Amino acid sequence: MQLRKGGLMFAEILQTIVEETRGGAGAVLMGYDGIAIEQFFLPIDGLDLQLVAVEYANILKEIKRTAEILDSGFMEEVTIRTERFLVLVRVLTDDYFVALTLRRDGNFGKGRYLLMREAPNLRAALA
Amino acid sequence: MQLRKGGLMFAEILQTIVEETRGGAGAVLMGYDGIAIEQFFLPIDGLDLQLVAVEYANILKEIKRTAEILDSGFMEEVTIRTERFLVLVRVLTDDYFVALTLRRDGNFGKGRYLLMREAPNLRAALA
Repeated sequence: MQLRKGGLMFAEILQTIVEETRGGAGAVLMGYDGIAIEQFFLPIDGLDLQLVAVEYANILKEIKRTAEILDSGFMEEVTIRTERFLVLVRVLTDDYFVALTLRRDGNFGKGRYLLMREAPNLRAALA
Repeated sequence: MQLRKGGLMFAEILQTIVEETRGGAGAVLMGYDGIAIEQFFLPIDGLDLQLVAVEYANILKEIKRTAEILDSGFMEEVTIRTERFLVLVRVLTDDYFVALTLRRDGNFGKGRYLLMREAPNLRAALA
């Protein structure tokens, strides 16, 4: 029951983030092990967003480890801009992060704001 | 002669980027192999910025590879925000990138602008 409630809440939050961000393509709540708890993806030609998220989970794990080793403080946010997409990542806990993928011409600032706004709700639902 | 000229130009450009960005701590022009061509660092307590750059070179190599595999287009820019620092990375060529580290409260937008403004100059000096 608790889990189901959390699951519903996760899906709703991710959908809100994607739909309220102009150019939003998908969002995923994922562990550093690359396993998604929940996701919401719009269909995008020629891109498997779930695969994107899994690949980036590995990278984030490395960045997290590096930040800790270097004592530069906890990693909070990572942004990757490619020719076609923007990937915005916000760290939630030691084990989980949320990632939003948007089109290059999407509203980066709005996406970033929504990830920040929803982070406490996602964190609460994870607990 | 050519090389020395390039070296001088690199050092000047990196220094300009760091000094004109409020909160700027250091900048490095580096290959994905983690070997720096040139760098300009201000002394920062408890942080070895050269080590930071080397560690991040590995991560960037991974991100670059991932972006190519996923066909999400070339990686252009990566931003990593930790508790204490912001690391801004701009890809220059298939082999080299420039990274600017600034304090958390530094002027992110100005740093990003300067990296964009100087990228063609760095690229020209690399050629």
